Amino acid sequence: MKSGKTEVIGVLGGCGPQAGLVLVDQIFRHTKASADQEHLPLLLSSIPAQITDRTAFILGKTTQNPAKAIAGLILQLESAGATVVGIACNTAHSPVIFDSITEILLTRKSKVKLLHIVEETVSFLRDNFPQVKKVGVLCTEGAYKTKLYETVLKDHGLNVINPGEHFQRNYVHRCIYDPEFGIKACSAPVRPEAKELLHNIISYYKAEGAEALILGCTEFSIALTAEAIDDIPIIDSTKVLARALVREACVEKLVDYKFSTDNVHVQ
Amino acid sequence: MKSGKTEVIGVLGGCGPQAGLVLVDQIFRHTKASADQEHLPLLLSSIPAQITDRTAFILGKTTQNPAKAIAGLILQLESAGATVVGIACNTAHSPVIFDSITEILLTRKSKVKLLHIVEETVSFLRDNFPQVKKVGVLCTEGAYKTKLYETVLKDHGLNVINPGEHFQRNYVHRCIYDPEFGIKACSAPVRPEAKELLHNIISYYKAEGAEALILGCTEFSIALTAEAIDDIPIIDSTKVLARALVREACVEKLVDYKFSTDNVHVQ
Repeated sequence: MKSGKTEVIGVLGGCGPQAGLVLVDQIFRHTKASADQEHLPLLLSSIPAQITDRTAFILGKTTQNPAKAIAGLILQLESAGATVVGIACNTAHSPVIFDSITEILLTRKSKVKLLHIVEETVSFLRDNFPQVKKVGVLCTEGAYKTKLYETVLKDHGLNVINPGEHFQRNYVHRCIYDPEFGIKACSAPVRPEAKELLHNIISYYKAEGAEALILGCTEFSIALTAEAIDDIPIIDSTKVLARALVREACVEKLVDYKFSTDNVHVQ
Repeated sequence: MKSGKTEVIGVLGGCGPQAGLVLVDQIFRHTKASADQEHLPLLLSSIPAQITDRTAFILGKTTQNPAKAIAGLILQLESAGATVVGIACNTAHSPVIFDSITEILLTRKSKVKLLHIVEETVSFLRDNFPQVKKVGVLCTEGAYKTKLYETVLKDHGLNVINPGEHFQRNYVHRCIYDPEFGIKACSAPVRPEAKELLHNIISYYKAEGAEALILGCTEFSIALTAEAIDDIPIIDSTKVLARALVREACVEKLVDYKFSTDNVHVQ
């Protein structure tokens, strides 16, 4: 957390492009500014062709770790002036990818402060909803298999609902990746089939007793913007990362967080 | 128009930040892609503190021409890999600013292809709506005073409705710049007072016999997303620039244009 120094926010987008855009939008929304010039300096890199699919790598469908491309693009952002960077993709934070990114940055003597979307999201949940004990996480197959959220949530003493492999693959993952209607293929607007899957996913987690839901894939932030569904708070990892980037760049400009039940979606 | 070569789109945002974001969003929407990796490489620079207000300079409220900062940021985008660049601000295309930008780029031996939002928008109008003869332009005070659209439209044999200084200042310009409710200060969501002004502006141009309306300030693209109002087509300069950038980067990926009356706003 810095103050009085000019930090430049770097957003590593492109995985997917729309998710990078949503992160930038959230950064602007969480910045106190009444004129153009009061907004924070920001650079967005969206070079998707270089970044192999994170889940495809984790599932062994490709041997090419996207870490190398992501680290290269972070170094480019640093050359262009970025000092504090966020990656707009949860699955890229799976240890098998993220640890390799930080290793490359270390080798290349990068001075960039790279935030961790999962650590930030779980800390945010703990700080703002201390009563929550049981959590449902909406994430990709790659994040699920590598227990990305599960590990961090357990470290904080929280219980995670395990939807099982079948449900995870055919509902949660499919909602993002279906080639016909998944959010990655069709995000503007999100297709009714994806919305229907999302409805089923939420009903499932509610029935399983979830006290909070984490949107643990940046694509879900596009499809679900409510702050709560019925009385269950929705923790959007993209919003949390946006707030963390503003905090690191200039804490005085961070818009106060207030959980508002105005934006509640009733199923 | 290039094909088969990797071009990198550079977006000069930050003036204002939200307008830069809307341009990037439109680039993604006008790109044929069914997976992350199929999207075009893109870099966004949003460093607003460096860029003095364009209209303030044109009106003589500051002697600092924003051209120097804009050109410097375009050169940074070029260093980072950008080959074709668009500026997400109409007023920055006023000759007193734009000519200075191109001069600096020439002196610095920049190879970047810099598109011109006004030239693109007027060409688009002529190509797609050849029957239109009388046009209303929604723009800033700076663009109005420098006859930014008027000159190019007249060059193409089109008539421009002149709203007069009073209406331009107290309705059109104010809708963008009012410190309490203008689109620059409050864009997420756009405030009812700004919407009310916008409603009045459109009614005025309709009464004056406009056959098309040009959204000639990127801020209006945030507030008005309809393709037509009643039977008057809305030509959104941000969408046109987005299409031009995709065309220059990879014409095969440009989504076909089809004027759709599905998205018509009835006043």
